[in-house]
Amino acid sequence: MEKGSVSLGKRTYDIFVGRGAFNLALEKLSELCSEGRCSVCVADSEVLRAHSKKLSESFGKLPREKFFVVEESGGESAKSFSRLEELCDEFASAKLDRSGSVFALGGGVVGDLAGFAASSYMRGVDFYQVPTTLLAMVDSSVGGKTGINISAGKNLVGAFKQPKGVYADTDFLKTLPPREFSAGMAEVVKYALISDADFFEELGAERIDPESESLSKIIAKCCEMKAAVVASDEMETSPVNGRALLNLGHTFGHAIEKCAGYGEYLHGEAVSIGLVLTALLSRNLGFLTDSDVERIKRVLTLNDLPVKLRSPLSAEEILKAMSLDKKSSRGRKKFVVMKSIGKSETSSEVSDEEVVSVLREFL
Amino acid sequence: MEKGSVSLGKRTYDIFVGRGAFNLALEKLSELCSEGRCSVCVADSEVLRAHSKKLSESFGKLPREKFFVVEESGGESAKSFSRLEELCDEFASAKLDRSGSVFALGGGVVGDLAGFAASSYMRGVDFYQVPTTLLAMVDSSVGGKTGINISAGKNLVGAFKQPKGVYADTDFLKTLPPREFSAGMAEVVKYALISDADFFEELGAERIDPESESLSKIIAKCCEMKAAVVASDEMETSPVNGRALLNLGHTFGHAIEKCAGYGEYLHGEAVSIGLVLTALLSRNLGFLTDSDVERIKRVLTLNDLPVKLRSPLSAEEILKAMSLDKKSSRGRKKFVVMKSIGKSETSSEVSDEEVVSVLREFL
Repeated sequence: MEKGSVSLGKRTYDIFVGRGAFNLALEKLSELCSEGRCSVCVADSEVLRAHSKKLSESFGKLPREKFFVVEESGGESAKSFSRLEELCDEFASAKLDRSGSVFALGGGVVGDLAGFAASSYMRGVDFYQVPTTLLAMVDSSVGGKTGINISAGKNLVGAFKQPKGVYADTDFLKTLPPREFSAGMAEVVKYALISDADFFEELGAERIDPESESLSKIIAKCCEMKAAVVASDEMETSPVNGRALLNLGHTFGHAIEKCAGYGEYLHGEAVSIGLVLTALLSRNLGFLTDSDVERIKRVLTLNDLPVKLRSPLSAEEILKAMSLDKKSSRGRKKFVVMKSIGKSETSSEVSDEEVVSVLREFL
Repeated sequence: MEKGSVSLGKRTYDIFVGRGAFNLALEKLSELCSEGRCSVCVADSEVLRAHSKKLSESFGKLPREKFFVVEESGGESAKSFSRLEELCDEFASAKLDRSGSVFALGGGVVGDLAGFAASSYMRGVDFYQVPTTLLAMVDSSVGGKTGINISAGKNLVGAFKQPKGVYADTDFLKTLPPREFSAGMAEVVKYALISDADFFEELGAERIDPESESLSKIIAKCCEMKAAVVASDEMETSPVNGRALLNLGHTFGHAIEKCAGYGEYLHGEAVSIGLVLTALLSRNLGFLTDSDVERIKRVLTLNDLPVKLRSPLSAEEILKAMSLDKKSSRGRKKFVVMKSIGKSETSSEVSDEEVVSVLREFL
């Protein structure tokens, strides 16, 4: 098992990655129970189904009425105000008080929703992440971003809520649908493109799957990179680089998800296409070569990720969706561009014309 | 004009109290506008009506579409998930981005709702309080507690969101319904009972109304006391005393509000009755004399506040409502009791029997 941590002074927390991490989460749960601190678990319905035996045995200490199921298969639709309100009502029914904790067992949808609920319920109770998808393990479970969607956009409402611990057990990945595993790989490729050319090189060497020997190390490496960025710029207030770097490919990705209709692309799939668009933009700006763009596409394709749209979208609509992105400030879009493979930077110099030109070429 | 501040390191902010404070808020708004930072205002419909001329002139810089009206006259009903969601949608329509600010112009309902929206929208934008009721000036606008209600209880969902500034213009109090002004006085009396016997003495000398000369100083004194408590225990994590002291009378008060049905008593009215109940409890515990209890009732009555219930409620129901109070932790209720007038302390030693006995005597 790999272990890392996010250094945030008194709020520092550990990240455990690998087989057996789930047992550590259970130990934590028992410890809290024995202190008289009531805990609840918000769990993905698919995970409960796929691991029913293991879970019913191990979660024995947590009675049925402390379990709240989120239909993550419904995609982002669970990240709504109405589900959040229900969840808070359910916490109250379960008599969760300020000394209590919320465990999120599932993918990014469960973590984002349960995390925001833990942040808001009684103005904040403790929160533990037990991610079960690759995407959640390498990205959403670390760093404290939680939130829900509103009609104007994804994650437009939420909170920074750091967990007290992250337990990423790779055994859960074995029952993950292959398409979802691939979607998680998009974020892995993203980390390599941001700051580690050697890591990108490694990723080009073999397709990663749930049985890959290197999987725990890869996840831990991503967590480590994310932890370093989060520790240096927790609230994304740095004017350059900092936490915003993690949005490489996401400005395009979010807009594509929104324009195609949430659910059409998995988040990681949209990020994959967003990475290709960002690579093209970076080439147009004179930073990458055509061959760099091809290398990036190859690594994404190797991991069964899309590098083009499945059905056409209009450039104007995508541009419009991008202008409402959370990252834009004082009317300017903040882009992350690749100066080279393994070296990305934020830039406020990207004009709408350059964005439209890339979109026109690509669409 | 009086000026104070809440000392929270980099997040320290000023509180302006008195005639002219509103103009300072407008100056801040203009300053933000001129920096290209879009602001929106969430305003109470009553305040807009009562001060339409002044507001339409002075808020000239803020176009109509940046104004969002909350019907505070509907009481606590606006502090709902559905109104919160609408507000966030409205912020997005107004193109509020991360550099933007939310101004709350109104009473506690507007401040609590707008503050939680400002805390959650894009995971947090800047927030300014322009309280227009006495209750909001002396209590809810200072200290950063924001939130909404769910069916299980009041303020059970929310955030700690410190404002960037508080502008309490006493001119607004002149159009406040007398009943609401009195309700605010309950919190003023509370501060005196917590830590200032001389202040309590002063309050006994004359009835305070919106024209009272001492009003700005009284409000500033309450803000100062609250600021000191908040600076020392921002998130209410201190195991004894600290921020929890501000809940003197509120454990009973909240339960009464809930059991009578929200809207039956104004918050301050319920707190007034809660203070009487707490005085009785403190007497039963051997801390206060019968004459102390009478003095407390007299100051409340002097300010037109209720010292008994208007219609009967059951002791069992009130006890049940108290057990879900946010302050209870690991199944124990945390009470604030008066050791003497002007000296209150938190106590976890209060048993259900003692509470029921006080309720039985009082009801």
